[in-house]
Amino acid sequence: MLHLDPLSAAEISQTSTIIRASSKSEVKFNSITLLEPPKAEYVAFRDAGGPRPTRRSLSIVIPRGTQQVVEVTVNLVSQKVESWREIKDVMPILTLEDLDVVEKISRVDPQVIKACNELGITDMSKVFFDGWAIGVDERWGFERRLQQALAYYRTSPLDNQYAHPLDFTVIADTEREEILSVDIRTVNGERTPVSMKEHNYLPEFAETNQYKFDVLKPISITQPQGVSFKMSGREIHWANLKMHIGFNYREGLVLSDIRMRDPYDSSNKDRKIFNRLSVVEMFVPYGSPKSPHHKKHAFDIGEYGSGFMANSLKLGCDCKGVIQYLDAVLNTSTGAPLLIENAICIHEEDNGLLYKHTDFRDGRVISARDRKLVISQILTAANYEYAFYHTFTLDGTYKLEVKLTGMLNTYCLHESEESAPFGTEIADRLDAQNHQHIFSLRVDPEIDGSNNSVIQSDAVPADIPAEQNPYGNGFMAKKTTFKTAKDGAASYCHETSRTWDIVNPNIVSAVSKKPVGYKIVNSQCPALLAKPDSVIAKRGSFAQKSLWVLPYRDYELFPAGDYVCQSTGDHHPENLTISDWVARDEPIENTDIVCYVQFGLTHFPRTEDFPIMPAEPVSVMLRASNFFEKNPALWVPPSELDEDSSSTNANSGIGRDRVQGKSTLGSKL
Amino acid sequence: MLHLDPLSAAEISQTSTIIRASSKSEVKFNSITLLEPPKAEYVAFRDAGGPRPTRRSLSIVIPRGTQQVVEVTVNLVSQKVESWREIKDVMPILTLEDLDVVEKISRVDPQVIKACNELGITDMSKVFFDGWAIGVDERWGFERRLQQALAYYRTSPLDNQYAHPLDFTVIADTEREEILSVDIRTVNGERTPVSMKEHNYLPEFAETNQYKFDVLKPISITQPQGVSFKMSGREIHWANLKMHIGFNYREGLVLSDIRMRDPYDSSNKDRKIFNRLSVVEMFVPYGSPKSPHHKKHAFDIGEYGSGFMANSLKLGCDCKGVIQYLDAVLNTSTGAPLLIENAICIHEEDNGLLYKHTDFRDGRVISARDRKLVISQILTAANYEYAFYHTFTLDGTYKLEVKLTGMLNTYCLHESEESAPFGTEIADRLDAQNHQHIFSLRVDPEIDGSNNSVIQSDAVPADIPAEQNPYGNGFMAKKTTFKTAKDGAASYCHETSRTWDIVNPNIVSAVSKKPVGYKIVNSQCPALLAKPDSVIAKRGSFAQKSLWVLPYRDYELFPAGDYVCQSTGDHHPENLTISDWVARDEPIENTDIVCYVQFGLTHFPRTEDFPIMPAEPVSVMLRASNFFEKNPALWVPPSELDEDSSSTNANSGIGRDRVQGKSTLGSKL
Repeated sequence: MLHLDPLSAAEISQTSTIIRASSKSEVKFNSITLLEPPKAEYVAFRDAGGPRPTRRSLSIVIPRGTQQVVEVTVNLVSQKVESWREIKDVMPILTLEDLDVVEKISRVDPQVIKACNELGITDMSKVFFDGWAIGVDERWGFERRLQQALAYYRTSPLDNQYAHPLDFTVIADTEREEILSVDIRTVNGERTPVSMKEHNYLPEFAETNQYKFDVLKPISITQPQGVSFKMSGREIHWANLKMHIGFNYREGLVLSDIRMRDPYDSSNKDRKIFNRLSVVEMFVPYGSPKSPHHKKHAFDIGEYGSGFMANSLKLGCDCKGVIQYLDAVLNTSTGAPLLIENAICIHEEDNGLLYKHTDFRDGRVISARDRKLVISQILTAANYEYAFYHTFTLDGTYKLEVKLTGMLNTYCLHESEESAPFGTEIADRLDAQNHQHIFSLRVDPEIDGSNNSVIQSDAVPADIPAEQNPYGNGFMAKKTTFKTAKDGAASYCHETSRTWDIVNPNIVSAVSKKPVGYKIVNSQCPALLAKPDSVIAKRGSFAQKSLWVLPYRDYELFPAGDYVCQSTGDHHPENLTISDWVARDEPIENTDIVCYVQFGLTHFPRTEDFPIMPAEPVSVMLRASNFFEKNPALWVPPSELDEDSSSTNANSGIGRDRVQGKSTLGSKL
Repeated sequence: MLHLDPLSAAEISQTSTIIRASSKSEVKFNSITLLEPPKAEYVAFRDAGGPRPTRRSLSIVIPRGTQQVVEVTVNLVSQKVESWREIKDVMPILTLEDLDVVEKISRVDPQVIKACNELGITDMSKVFFDGWAIGVDERWGFERRLQQALAYYRTSPLDNQYAHPLDFTVIADTEREEILSVDIRTVNGERTPVSMKEHNYLPEFAETNQYKFDVLKPISITQPQGVSFKMSGREIHWANLKMHIGFNYREGLVLSDIRMRDPYDSSNKDRKIFNRLSVVEMFVPYGSPKSPHHKKHAFDIGEYGSGFMANSLKLGCDCKGVIQYLDAVLNTSTGAPLLIENAICIHEEDNGLLYKHTDFRDGRVISARDRKLVISQILTAANYEYAFYHTFTLDGTYKLEVKLTGMLNTYCLHESEESAPFGTEIADRLDAQNHQHIFSLRVDPEIDGSNNSVIQSDAVPADIPAEQNPYGNGFMAKKTTFKTAKDGAASYCHETSRTWDIVNPNIVSAVSKKPVGYKIVNSQCPALLAKPDSVIAKRGSFAQKSLWVLPYRDYELFPAGDYVCQSTGDHHPENLTISDWVARDEPIENTDIVCYVQFGLTHFPRTEDFPIMPAEPVSVMLRASNFFEKNPALWVPPSELDEDSSSTNANSGIGRDRVQGKSTLGSKL
């Protein structure tokens, strides 16, 4: 086992066995995961021949039938519990097993049955409940482990329930398996009838000839010589790049030790770029002010976990070509290992032009093709799907692209209501509400070492006397180095095309005389639209800025807190959030830092998003910026030396007749 | 010939023969192109059985040895000159033949030779001159057809000249083939020595083993059943989409009559989306205020022409898969047809997930793959390369992606100078200056007909009483319908995630109750950084806004004017710009409108951009927005019914050992 590898199935079983043996009461295992070694210890081992870090697991357990939360650290070498810490007034994530509870108990609850009967629904096997964490509900606190359930109807087992939302929600205690309330939303004192119109998309419902099989001819993508990367355990080597691919129940994919062999560095050593990359939070606040919709603001990573929600992927459906899959092993509530086969997909894609230039005089042309390495996972968060593509290209760029697809969250409209302005009527009497998706990418940089700084770069007209700028064309990048964490809380500025350079101020490029760096390019980062003093904005305070820069601290990972479920947004000494970290206002210049990069989109639903949404992409990028002394991909053979024998000509050109000349640019290519 | 097809070689020859016969003096043909029929005439023919539009050519000619500019219209049916119009104080684009002139005459000019000798250069065959339009030069006006030439040295014929810029520029009269001035830039009264250090990237210079041939394994992309589109002349049919593919010397690619068969429209008619799409201008102002760099602000389309600069494309190098090429036929200065073979590339690409959803209860999963239709061209503008990819996907989205590559414009640094803050030293004593690239995409919409409006949409917190928004989460799209052209001059707003809906206000979606529309998504649109009163900002006034909306007028196409070379930015009654069009402030609501969408990027060069730039993408998108009554791609067979037999598994999963459970999400897929 490498030191960053996820727990093996055996280690998960060992952990639960050890914990069970040392617990006075029966426990439910919420999560069992690798406790990564403290950074200093790991780095000493990795870089300086220090001792091998001890392998430990961290478990969150709930004594059965209670709402207590206990963190247990197990030393997997000594096979002993090292710490057992109860944390008050917090709630751990809701696992898929937890979410199943609410559907099970709702179907048989008399109040729920009554609420359905009033709508004319008597067959409770046709009523489905999507369990959600509860955004805000003042009626209960941490004495209950809460869930809310959104109710839907299906006309048949595979029918699309999002076409038939019911007008009530159910509040449940997950641990005691009790229904606490059935909240019926009446309009003018009336119930809203359920829409029985079907809107399906599964082939079981396809009418004859709905699918057109002859329209799109197949595109085959093959790699007759296999893939260009090598796996050594969970470490991948591709082109000049190396990294470790981890996975856990909460962050899902974790990329560590990202480094690159610099073709121009004669020392032939790998250069460090990032210590660790992962998506640590995702916030989806809905924009309808009407009750009960204010409760819908999901923290999908902090409340459910990217790992627990991971899809098992399938060849040719999720990605094409030659695919390397990795499994994920997580845990069940009994502490047994839980397998998600093919949870991680690793593959390459052609990425179009890497570069091209033609000399217009003689037509001498050179071009090369770029290549992507894509490490991806897809998760299902009740109705929504998120596909995360961590992408590396030959020019040294890292890009995280997220594709959003799946199903809109829908609600029924009473005849006296209309969707506008807080939503769109995406089918008859079916409301899809405005919402935002704000992701937080945690970047632990290591640009040529651990001491880094962040320099904000704003494109501005030159502020110099007119005689030095007679034509008014002068412009420059105004550079601001962040000194402390409060400086490092930054918003994107469109007017200055703002970017941020993560640099190593101690290593200046011999060529450019600028510090070596990687540039954060992040323009798709909508402002949080909830009011700044709202509970939504307090709970999701991380989403208020495009960038946060903080000093590195071990185990500070999650900007909305380690425990997000039922969080209030108020200060909790054992459940700190990014607001607490920033308030310390510690130095962030020329030290070990961490960046939280927020990006995402504001979604005003369209009819085209129903009954299943076309994937919508959103991305953030980190580009080498004066890091390499020149284009780092000059080793890639240009196309003229690397014949592509698979591409073919569809047929001859159209429009050519009795032409006497040829263009300079065209003639000699 | 269809009515929008480019002139054939025969028609070009006919045109030049007719013009030559009716001209008193010898003429040089600047351009010969199709004069598209007036819209009303074309639409009457297309939609209402009106008479067939007469086919006409429009030529710009220059009486030999003069700087006069004459527009000649030829009726290709009657074979007669219909109009002959001299236009004063304008200059047409510089053709590649024109640009060759300056290199030829500079090499033998005594002043130029002297300027080179002073730098120790005696072999003039090693000195190269990139001809450019002149940005601003007060010394001459329209009595001269001006060019400036940037001077470079090559140590050998294929050596990269951009590593050896010389410290002077040459000003020439293109028509009289005279050198007007050699402008030597001295620093502290001294010349700047030419850097003789080579920075090459062509295989001829590759040292042994520089290229690594075994690192990237081939990716083969094949379409065993051929492409999914059909060409009928220059009309393409793909999936539900149809359009005409035109091409001319100035705009390059022109897409017309873009329409789509709506799977949910029982009338089975094509629905109109766009009348015409093309990139009509591109502005590249440089940001160094030092003379002579203020003269470098290129209007690549208006000053040189996307068509004239088009590359002849090559299988597997520019695009992979099964490729349909179209040739372009332009003209030489003698009026002969000029062939650019394979100027246009049409191909399909797999585009990843079209949609996906998994029911978390039972694991029922559905997904389908998206497909791109890409219509592209690549052009070389002296040092820079621009690749334009007009892309359509199955969800009805149109995206224009531009990839920027090629060579940085470089200049020599005197030993007393440094690059910062107006550039980056990208190699020893080699300055690459800050610059911007601002493109203008002209969208002539036809959303379900010709009468359209534009509605600005700003995501804003709900401005309603607190009791109606108790949790502060309410937000909405504030809608502003543009009434007149001055309203329609809009900037992007990041804080509100601003978008613009092009709608047909007369056709309201039965489902959403909103007018049918297409949304302009354009966040990559940097502000022009030149001072607002500068000649740069006046000449490139179109680049001052992200969007302009204007009423349609025949032959109003080019926002920086029909004649951009040597334009001053001042009003010229026969060479109107977008400033003139907007000043009319005409109604733009519920009428035939045109949108100019500006997008691009601000480039602070990096060492990684040298000696040849990795392609940098930038894009703008138009998405269906309540145009279709639901997801328009439900006809695409889902992956489970459309087996992909080409994808393969690299090898088995890593990390699986003694696992007892499987995840709900994973187990039943």
